[in-house]
Amino acid sequence: MTIRQTNEIPTVSELGEQGILDAMLPLLSTRKANLGPGDDAGALKVKGSEVVVSVDTLVENQDFRQAWPSGFKHKAFDVGWKSIAQNVSDINAMGGVPTGAVVSLSLPGDLSVEWVKDLAAGMSAAIEALGAQDLAIVGGDLGRSTEISVTTTVLGECHHGKVLRTGAKPGDRIAVAGRLGSAGAGLAVLDSSKQWQTWNRSVRRLVDAQCRPEPPLESGPRAAVAGATAMMDISDGLLRDAVRMAKASKVNFNFDSTALESFKARLEPASLWLKQDPMTWVLEGGEDFGLLATFPASVEIPEEFTVIGQVQQQAGRRSLTKIDGEVVNGSRGFDHFSS
Amino acid sequence: MTIRQTNEIPTVSELGEQGILDAMLPLLSTRKANLGPGDDAGALKVKGSEVVVSVDTLVENQDFRQAWPSGFKHKAFDVGWKSIAQNVSDINAMGGVPTGAVVSLSLPGDLSVEWVKDLAAGMSAAIEALGAQDLAIVGGDLGRSTEISVTTTVLGECHHGKVLRTGAKPGDRIAVAGRLGSAGAGLAVLDSSKQWQTWNRSVRRLVDAQCRPEPPLESGPRAAVAGATAMMDISDGLLRDAVRMAKASKVNFNFDSTALESFKARLEPASLWLKQDPMTWVLEGGEDFGLLATFPASVEIPEEFTVIGQVQQQAGRRSLTKIDGEVVNGSRGFDHFSS
Repeated sequence: MTIRQTNEIPTVSELGEQGILDAMLPLLSTRKANLGPGDDAGALKVKGSEVVVSVDTLVENQDFRQAWPSGFKHKAFDVGWKSIAQNVSDINAMGGVPTGAVVSLSLPGDLSVEWVKDLAAGMSAAIEALGAQDLAIVGGDLGRSTEISVTTTVLGECHHGKVLRTGAKPGDRIAVAGRLGSAGAGLAVLDSSKQWQTWNRSVRRLVDAQCRPEPPLESGPRAAVAGATAMMDISDGLLRDAVRMAKASKVNFNFDSTALESFKARLEPASLWLKQDPMTWVLEGGEDFGLLATFPASVEIPEEFTVIGQVQQQAGRRSLTKIDGEVVNGSRGFDHFSS
Repeated sequence: MTIRQTNEIPTVSELGEQGILDAMLPLLSTRKANLGPGDDAGALKVKGSEVVVSVDTLVENQDFRQAWPSGFKHKAFDVGWKSIAQNVSDINAMGGVPTGAVVSLSLPGDLSVEWVKDLAAGMSAAIEALGAQDLAIVGGDLGRSTEISVTTTVLGECHHGKVLRTGAKPGDRIAVAGRLGSAGAGLAVLDSSKQWQTWNRSVRRLVDAQCRPEPPLESGPRAAVAGATAMMDISDGLLRDAVRMAKASKVNFNFDSTALESFKARLEPASLWLKQDPMTWVLEGGEDFGLLATFPASVEIPEEFTVIGQVQQQAGRRSLTKIDGEVVNGSRGFDHFSS
């Protein structure tokens, strides 16, 4: 693999811990940190009386691949971007604003230091592009492994109260912000035999959605202010995550297929090319990191949200998720440990 | 390996994400958490206006081994213990109290779920035994990998101000709390050809120090109250960490060899057995997670600290670390990426 064992660019084991840090730190935005890296722990100012915290790990060959069946090479930049994106999304889903992060890297000794620098650049770019301007990377850990593993922990604050997934009420409208199915379609393209050189612009945009997801960061706090009763991010697919929210809130969810079909348009080119049903991506595709929220009938829903259904009273002891009144199987979606 | 591919105990991929969580969560103390697991982010009450945060990853075959040359089998319980211990140590080293944690696990699909339960039990046991009674595990992440990887992020608060590693002043006394060299000696035993069945009690105690380290959790805040000018935990060996502190504080450190020799006593049995110099473990052994702190001459040092030297003015542009006035090489100790 070209990223390893090159002769000219030093490897991480040649540089050592301090050398790796020296290469990475200038690329990481630390402008808001009230402590430089170097002490045992990072420190973070807190305005309220509570912090929210989320952690996620990206592992080589599980969450990303150095090279895909399509021949596309996964950039370290994109791994860094996604590691930030998926964690700030969790804070967003609570109605919060991300304020700080720590990063733990486990790296093979023969990895090129260019890979690590590109990772750091992707993290900084995501912080900037997603509008997480209050987020400072305040600390981290470096260690050795045989496969690349990137764990990011993000802290945040909810200035308008936390929005949980347990608060959906019968009569509420169900709404989503952000993309549905784009990252899933992008994954299908990456996994396909269609070589990357042949991708057109609309197909490439779907791959970008998979590699550099864009959680709608302002929409979480805005939904909290508007009066959302429940909220979560859609990381494992709309159906799977909706079933979780419906169960947690002890209600039924009923989706409107017409509203869901509006998300098909940008998936059509890939759908035709790969001969796959775009609705499967809309319903089951994960990693767009959009928001799923419920709002009482009385409140004004922020304009970037699309209403896709209604919360209903749970009839029996089991919570049901339906499309146009018909019960759907909620296990359609992503489970890290399913075979 | 017996922990994998057994027929009777389910593997993590057989159980799936929810099944793993259902097996682990009853074993994790969540009594102080103000949110149950299940939402996108965990939440933590904050009393002051700042949190400190630290992250560390333990990777199979790097930071622990399923089986050592000595035939000793590493318990998941001990991996869980150490993952908590090394992170609360970082908070302790700032003069703080650990208040919350999130845990990210990357696990091979064929790992026995018993391993995961034992890991959770070890985490809870460490929280209890180390006296981290305010620490709640408020969230986490589960994913797949080929090697086991455990990342713990711990949050804390410093009610008496943060003690950094930059504040040591000429004239200060240098002192340590906790063990020096025990975990290093334990590592040498584990790595030796001396089969574990032949270990006597004092040797086994050193192995315990390596597998279940005991950072002196009350000593960090106590040092802060007493007026420590600088503090850090000793994770990579006394010399290596002292050099870092001396550099960060722009001073020289001068150790007193007689004071350091007092730490040799409990290492003697292993030293005689393995024919290794115990002073090497005292000076270079990592992972005891004791505290290295400096105190002005005027203050009363908490009694559990042993004075081992004095801070001196830096003569030239380089910071020096000495023993009895003779300069020592500060690279003696542990670097994750050195070959």
